Amino acid sequence: MQKFEQFLLDNLPISKSIHPTYQEALCRMLEAGGKRFRPALLLSVVNAYNPLLLDGARHVAYAIELLHTYSLIHDDLPAMDNSPLRRGKPTLHVAFDEVTAILVGDALNTYSFEVLSNAPFSDYVRVQLIRELASNGGLNGMVLGQAIDCYFENKPLKLEDIKILHINKTAKLIAASLKMGAIIVGREKVSQSLYDFGIKLGLLFQIQDDILDVTQSSLEAGKLTNNDESKNSFVTILGLDKAMSEANILADELTIELENFDECLKIELSVILLKYINRHK
Amino acid sequence: MQKFEQFLLDNLPISKSIHPTYQEALCRMLEAGGKRFRPALLLSVVNAYNPLLLDGARHVAYAIELLHTYSLIHDDLPAMDNSPLRRGKPTLHVAFDEVTAILVGDALNTYSFEVLSNAPFSDYVRVQLIRELASNGGLNGMVLGQAIDCYFENKPLKLEDIKILHINKTAKLIAASLKMGAIIVGREKVSQSLYDFGIKLGLLFQIQDDILDVTQSSLEAGKLTNNDESKNSFVTILGLDKAMSEANILADELTIELENFDECLKIELSVILLKYINRHK
Repeated sequence: MQKFEQFLLDNLPISKSIHPTYQEALCRMLEAGGKRFRPALLLSVVNAYNPLLLDGARHVAYAIELLHTYSLIHDDLPAMDNSPLRRGKPTLHVAFDEVTAILVGDALNTYSFEVLSNAPFSDYVRVQLIRELASNGGLNGMVLGQAIDCYFENKPLKLEDIKILHINKTAKLIAASLKMGAIIVGREKVSQSLYDFGIKLGLLFQIQDDILDVTQSSLEAGKLTNNDESKNSFVTILGLDKAMSEANILADELTIELENFDECLKIELSVILLKYINRHK
Repeated sequence: MQKFEQFLLDNLPISKSIHPTYQEALCRMLEAGGKRFRPALLLSVVNAYNPLLLDGARHVAYAIELLHTYSLIHDDLPAMDNSPLRRGKPTLHVAFDEVTAILVGDALNTYSFEVLSNAPFSDYVRVQLIRELASNGGLNGMVLGQAIDCYFENKPLKLEDIKILHINKTAKLIAASLKMGAIIVGREKVSQSLYDFGIKLGLLFQIQDDILDVTQSSLEAGKLTNNDESKNSFVTILGLDKAMSEANILADELTIELENFDECLKIELSVILLKYINRHK
C-alpha cells in the first residue's frame, strides 16, 4: 500500500486561486492518512488476477478514497457528529470553518467521478466503475445510511434495521470496492459474489469499529470515540460481549466463504482479513 | 421545455427505507420548479443539430439540473447564505433540518453522475459528459466559486476578481451545459466556441441575477432577495446603473458573437437569449 499512498500524494487535487486556504483544505484530510481499507480491497482483487493493471487501478482506488473522505468530512460536521478530530487531525470545520468543510466535501465527491472519467481504462470500464461508485455511494447507499443513522439518533432500532443502516452507510462502498476490482480485471462472473462477500465484510468492519469506539481512546483511534451512546451501534444494542461474538461469527463465515473464490483471490483476501480484522477473545 | 419538466417528474430519485422523510426531501427542490436554464441551453444545442437525440439528451439535461439543484441546497445552508426560501418553497433545512439539507445535496451531487452513467448514449459520449460536468461543477469550477464567494463576504474584491468568482460559481456550469449539448451531437468543432459563449452568457446571467436581487421582492423571485449587501455582487461593486449598462454591453457582444455559429444554432440561441435575458433601459 506504500505505492498507493505515494500515488495519492502525487495526485492531490490542485486548485489555485485568490482563496488563501481552499487548496490546503482540499488536501488536508487526504494527506492525513487513514486505513485505506477500500483501496486495499480493490487493489487486492486486481493483484489477484492481473498485477499488470495495478498502476491503472490506483486511479480507481484513489477515486473511492476521495468519496470515502468526503463522507467523513460531512459526517463530522457540527450538524451531524460534530467531531473535533479525524485521522489524528482537527476536523476541517475546526481547522478552517464550516463553510470550508461543506465545500471541500462537495468538491471531493464530484472529484471522485472526474478521476474515474480519466482513469486509464476503456470507456466501457470507466462507465461501469462510475455507475458502481455512484449507486453504492449515493442516495440508495452511503448517503441513505448516514440519513438513517442521523434520523434515528436517540431512537433505538431493531437489530434488523441496524443492519440495513450499516449495510448502506458502510458495507455497500466496501462491497463496491471489491466489485470495482473485478470490473477492472474483467471478471464479471466473480463480481457479484465479491460484492456479497463485501457486504458481510463491511458489516464486520462496522461492528469492529463500534467495538473500538468503546474500547479505544480518541488518541488511539485518531477520532472522537465513546461517542456512540445515542447512536444505533451494534454495541449499544447488543452490548459489548454479544457484539464481539457477532463479529467472531461473521469472521468465521467469511473465512468459510473464502473457499468459494479462485486460489489467487483467496490468498489476497486472506491477507486483507488478517491485516484489517481483529479476533475477539 | 414542458417535455423536460415531465421527464424530470417521471425520473425523480427513488429511495424507500425506514427513514420517514428522506424520499420526500430528495424530491422537494427538484419538483419545486426553477428556470431550468441549464437544461434549456443543452437541449437547444441538441435541437439545432439533431432533434432525434432530444429524448436521450433529456437524461443529460436532468443530470445538470441535479447538480445545480444540489448546489442551491448547499448554498442556502445556515453556514452559507442561511436562506429560508428557494424556488418559492421553504428551503430544506427549514422544512426538514440541516442534516437533511446536507445529505440531500450530497445525494443529488452523486446522483447526477449516476444518471449520466446510464444516459442512452455510447460509453465514449458518457465519459466525455461526466468529465465535463465534474470538471466544471467541482473543485476548479462551481465549488471553487462558492468558496471564494463565502470567503470574501464583507471583503470587497476588485472587478477582475469578481469576474473570476462568478465565472467559477455560475458561468462554468452554464458553459458546460452548452458544450455537453455539442458532445451529444458529436460537434467537437463547435464545442469550444460554445463553451466560450457560455462563459460570457453565464456572467451576464449572474449580473442580471444581482440586479434582480435589488429590484425584486423575495415573493417575486421565489428566493431571499436584498441579501447581497455583504457579497461581492456586480451591483454592490459597480452600482445598479453601471451593472445594468455592463449587462447591456455583454448582451450586445453575445448578439454579435451569435453570427459565428451555424444558422441552426443561431436561431436556437437567439430564442434562449430572448427568453432568459432582459434588456435594461
